Amino acid sequence: MKNVNYLLGYENLKIVQRKDMFRFSLDSVLLPNFITLNSRIHKILDIGTGNAPIPLILSTKTNAKIIGVEIQEESFQLAQESVKLNHLESQIEIVCADIKEYSKMTETDTFDCITCNPPYFPYSKTSLVNDNEAKTSARHEYQLELEDIMKISRKLLKNNGVLALVHRPERLVSILEMMRKYNIEPKKIQFVYPKSGKDANILLVEGRKNGKPGLKILSPLYSHNEDGSYTDQIKEYFESR
Amino acid sequence: MKNVNYLLGYENLKIVQRKDMFRFSLDSVLLPNFITLNSRIHKILDIGTGNAPIPLILSTKTNAKIIGVEIQEESFQLAQESVKLNHLESQIEIVCADIKEYSKMTETDTFDCITCNPPYFPYSKTSLVNDNEAKTSARHEYQLELEDIMKISRKLLKNNGVLALVHRPERLVSILEMMRKYNIEPKKIQFVYPKSGKDANILLVEGRKNGKPGLKILSPLYSHNEDGSYTDQIKEYFESR
Repeated sequence: MKNVNYLLGYENLKIVQRKDMFRFSLDSVLLPNFITLNSRIHKILDIGTGNAPIPLILSTKTNAKIIGVEIQEESFQLAQESVKLNHLESQIEIVCADIKEYSKMTETDTFDCITCNPPYFPYSKTSLVNDNEAKTSARHEYQLELEDIMKISRKLLKNNGVLALVHRPERLVSILEMMRKYNIEPKKIQFVYPKSGKDANILLVEGRKNGKPGLKILSPLYSHNEDGSYTDQIKEYFESR
Repeated sequence: MKNVNYLLGYENLKIVQRKDMFRFSLDSVLLPNFITLNSRIHKILDIGTGNAPIPLILSTKTNAKIIGVEIQEESFQLAQESVKLNHLESQIEIVCADIKEYSKMTETDTFDCITCNPPYFPYSKTSLVNDNEAKTSARHEYQLELEDIMKISRKLLKNNGVLALVHRPERLVSILEMMRKYNIEPKKIQFVYPKSGKDANILLVEGRKNGKPGLKILSPLYSHNEDGSYTDQIKEYFESR
């Protein structure tokens, strides 16, 4: 049931996954390629890190210390294994904790960047949830609401620090409202389209704590060609740089 | 100073413009091609109609009655001339009035659709404004604030009626917040990019009065090719259908 995959095209990056659990997706590759990184960034937090695809890819782009927090024991174990397998123990730390508890125990203004690929669908008792607890938690706002992410980010981000999220375009209005409510000013958005002529299916958004208004809509990304293969734009993201 | 131009590629549509006044732009062509039209639409309001490019283009797409409201006497005169020149007096009515006054005098729940290509930059006393009053009023939020448009739309739209705006992407967050505040749920957004690889420079957004949440981000539009010519996508919009 346990596989060691190369993290797609990242030649030197391996990731440990289990077939019966939620596995990393295109979203996890898009986010670390979208977030604004620079040399003044020293500490990054990845909320709900799963088996750590985002910290692993970030490690190819920054020397910053990266902390991934994951509530599920099984995912935490896989994440730990991947970090060791890639000899990244000095850069990446995986913490097994409820992010809300982790936030309470952590000093304010700690991180330069926060990334999050959160659960997507508002959780309701009547909604069809997967009977595998690990999958349910990753796909539904079960343990973590959008508003929790904003509250935590407002506390843990340094002044002018950035929060980058990957989400569904349908939630755009709520996400932007919520960011402003928690003084995280939306600064940069990119939409990903499954192919030319289709509606967007992935939203990438970055906000800056106490930032000034001024939003950019970046040039669109297309994930797939007509024949179903990944576009060159996306293939580039899969290459370790 | 006064020119009669064909409305770009619209073979049978003529528009009267003055060189010293704000002239219709790509925005005015994009909006009537973006708004959701169907056979149940009987009455459309165009706020700040200028020399009436939006009503003129809408007349090629719908049999609905179209009312354009324009505060400036000179633009109103040009709009009237264009309507007569195109023999559209039975479909298009141009009213010379302050839209806020017009709204007060008009019954609630009157229109199926409202279109608006509003002034773009928040007006401030220190901002550089054009000394030609007509240009200033068309480019700045001088006489009409974003919030006025929402208030007026909430009053004048029928239940489930749509408001379609063309605006700048920088204002996306405020526009979406304001729409929700006035119960006009954002349902459809399209970004226009000047060319491939550039940030978006035009935002098209449509909201539905008392609509349910559920936003679509339509496939992007590119206005220009590398050589500066209009793309085929845009040329299509310029053709009367």
